[in-house]
Amino acid sequence: MNASLLTVTSGVEPTRLSGTDTTTAIVQRRSVKHYDASYNMPEADAKDLLQLALLSPTSFNMQNWRFVWVQNKETREAIKNAAWGQAQVTDASMLLLLCADLTAGTTNPERYWALAPQAVQDVIVPMIPQYYANNPQLQRDEAMRSIGIASQTLMVAAKAMGYDSCPMIGFDPVKVAEIINLPANHVIGMMITIGKAKEPAKGRGGQLPFEDVVFIDKF
Amino acid sequence: MNASLLTVTSGVEPTRLSGTDTTTAIVQRRSVKHYDASYNMPEADAKDLLQLALLSPTSFNMQNWRFVWVQNKETREAIKNAAWGQAQVTDASMLLLLCADLTAGTTNPERYWALAPQAVQDVIVPMIPQYYANNPQLQRDEAMRSIGIASQTLMVAAKAMGYDSCPMIGFDPVKVAEIINLPANHVIGMMITIGKAKEPAKGRGGQLPFEDVVFIDKF
Repeated sequence: MNASLLTVTSGVEPTRLSGTDTTTAIVQRRSVKHYDASYNMPEADAKDLLQLALLSPTSFNMQNWRFVWVQNKETREAIKNAAWGQAQVTDASMLLLLCADLTAGTTNPERYWALAPQAVQDVIVPMIPQYYANNPQLQRDEAMRSIGIASQTLMVAAKAMGYDSCPMIGFDPVKVAEIINLPANHVIGMMITIGKAKEPAKGRGGQLPFEDVVFIDKF
Repeated sequence: MNASLLTVTSGVEPTRLSGTDTTTAIVQRRSVKHYDASYNMPEADAKDLLQLALLSPTSFNMQNWRFVWVQNKETREAIKNAAWGQAQVTDASMLLLLCADLTAGTTNPERYWALAPQAVQDVIVPMIPQYYANNPQLQRDEAMRSIGIASQTLMVAAKAMGYDSCPMIGFDPVKVAEIINLPANHVIGMMITIGKAKEPAKGRGGQLPFEDVVFIDKF
């Protein structure tokens, strides 16, 4: 499982030959809060996780997510302080801040379709800024939606690679924005810790009944 | 791959014995727009996909997503009309509307932690409405975030089970809300089609360079 993914180049899909069954990874993924601080994740694994995240779908392929991979120890301590001292922020092997560029839809949209036939580009590229311009709520929805999708790619892939993870919103976003120098027109959607579990997750707190969350045809 | 998942009961995790490697499913997942309308997905597969989606993490375990599984042909036609006639809405084997209850954080939060020890419940349950009450932007962020996470569970699991999928935001949300009788204080985050591809996806439109979307320590 430590074989590196091929570098993702535009239009060329990476391959990884073996791993954990998808359903098992989805079922076994749990939010783990206690990590082995002595474990060093191979850099190739961390990069593979990010490469996989970059294959997550986004509306109009606009790839509006921005991942901040926090490696510096002092920076991680500062972020822990802005997250009410939660040990996982520094104990996990990998700390990622999942951010998004709110202006992705209106900034050089031609880059999202550079490999498409010209006729396709001519149609789709102008649609993107039209759709997002002057609609800050839609821009923010898109940030959270794309971050959510990419976060599950990371968490399921991490599980398949033998790691655990935890999605976190429990931090002061203003303080963390200062620490990571978040640009204007960007937003932080969540933080993810990834590493080797020191303690397994507790049992699930309680699942809502299927019929309370799945509706047939209409509410 | 057609063996049914065990029913997910609270605290009991389903198992599925075999399937496609997780990384392969993530890499091979593409947004497919053309489906074999004659294919009938076994109902067990559809239910398994939903059961897996229900294992997706949510903040405070509040399971704020609501899935509308549209089976009725006339309803699907009406939704297609509200989605500018896109054939995938009726051709795909499965059409899901991923919605969320914006008031999940303030409505009976004890149900999300019913299986936790009392001492844990006493701490976490009162935190949830405190966190979300009177904060409509946070409620909406949480809707989009949870929907995003669950959508990728569905799309990756579908790929592993031999299906393709497409996440869609290209529809009139007001019209679709009327069709599915969306309750007040709920929102639609996206639509997903799932089925057997009639045509493969086109090549990826263009991937942003790794260094444009991944930052070390700070922006």
